[in-house]
Amino acid sequence: MRLDIITCLPDLFDGPMNQSIVKRSQTKGHVEIAIHNLRDYATNKHKNVDDYAYGGGAGMVLSVEPIDKCISGLKEQRTYEEVIYLTPDGETLNQRMANQLSLNENMILLCGHYKGVDQRVRDHLVTKEISIGDYVLSGGELAAMVLADALIRLVPGVLNDESSALTDSFQDNLLAPPVYSRPVEYKGWKVPEVLTSGHEANIEKWRHDQAVKRTEERRPDLLD
Amino acid sequence: MRLDIITCLPDLFDGPMNQSIVKRSQTKGHVEIAIHNLRDYATNKHKNVDDYAYGGGAGMVLSVEPIDKCISGLKEQRTYEEVIYLTPDGETLNQRMANQLSLNENMILLCGHYKGVDQRVRDHLVTKEISIGDYVLSGGELAAMVLADALIRLVPGVLNDESSALTDSFQDNLLAPPVYSRPVEYKGWKVPEVLTSGHEANIEKWRHDQAVKRTEERRPDLLD
Repeated sequence: MRLDIITCLPDLFDGPMNQSIVKRSQTKGHVEIAIHNLRDYATNKHKNVDDYAYGGGAGMVLSVEPIDKCISGLKEQRTYEEVIYLTPDGETLNQRMANQLSLNENMILLCGHYKGVDQRVRDHLVTKEISIGDYVLSGGELAAMVLADALIRLVPGVLNDESSALTDSFQDNLLAPPVYSRPVEYKGWKVPEVLTSGHEANIEKWRHDQAVKRTEERRPDLLD
Repeated sequence: MRLDIITCLPDLFDGPMNQSIVKRSQTKGHVEIAIHNLRDYATNKHKNVDDYAYGGGAGMVLSVEPIDKCISGLKEQRTYEEVIYLTPDGETLNQRMANQLSLNENMILLCGHYKGVDQRVRDHLVTKEISIGDYVLSGGELAAMVLADALIRLVPGVLNDESSALTDSFQDNLLAPPVYSRPVEYKGWKVPEVLTSGHEANIEKWRHDQAVKRTEERRPDLLD
């Protein structure tokens, strides 16, 4: 999978895109991530990529021209299944959508900032608008990282233990059961006995019961 | 507002916490963010902070002891309104929750990783569990950054133009209307005439109508 991320704040990606599984996935060659600085596509002498909104009001708007130039240049190099704009009024990301998107080869992720991008970008260049949740962030960069992380870990070969992703919350519409590790007792807080019993069938049953119980208590909507 | 973030991958925070409004908010003194490396609180000679799950299965579990030591140390220095654990089975973050949390003075954000933290941490140390959405990430770090970003921009004085946050999506249960900037025509794509008319009342009406239309089309649930 290749992700081309367009942003006016490329330095934001320094830590997250060079650590942990994201780094490992790139080292292994499963995933390629390219960060594109929108300012490199600015057409005015001040290298501005934003401007005041027509009609007035607070907040700046990312201009159509540099974004169009950047996306057009990328499209000349390869075919993209999706040009995704991260925006709070997009379709809300969930695990099912992440599973589907993880099958794509090439995707562009466009990060908004300030008041967002010129509507003409959304009307003519973007193929899919995604929100990571019902809250407002200072820009689309963190949303792009979240989407990239959710997708990358689903690419075959990225996680060390493939079964690890399949037992995550949401993959079977159940939340994950509680987990415990050593020591068996800490400050009087004990690990449930069944988990140290060595009885595999009982452990499996306990975990399933706990997953159902937790889902019923916290997210009954997932069981509908 | 002070945020103490506990993580076993502190380098992940390099870019996001040193850029943009997060950096500006810290420089101005509105917000203080401290990143704590969980490994500094490891009690064994290998500095491990995770271990196998009792009962077997794929994935590692963050141990109770180093997390307890780190949180206890912080609590000796100040009072925290919340110890928040970022987890996909927590309460789903929305703007209303962000608004409420942004009124707090001191909060601890605990990032899970691998299969999560020992359940005893959640039972005895954590006061609130938050999910940023119905999808699985490789760790709680990006979720903590998302939460931090959503909260920081609500702290008075952080955004340059206070009215900018109030006209965001979700703050009035309406999505934001489309925005446009120069040029007035690009590749034949035109800006709606009303926005360049200079007629303030018409512009205000158009924006409100568009916000309602967009919300009805995309997120009718927000209007209930």
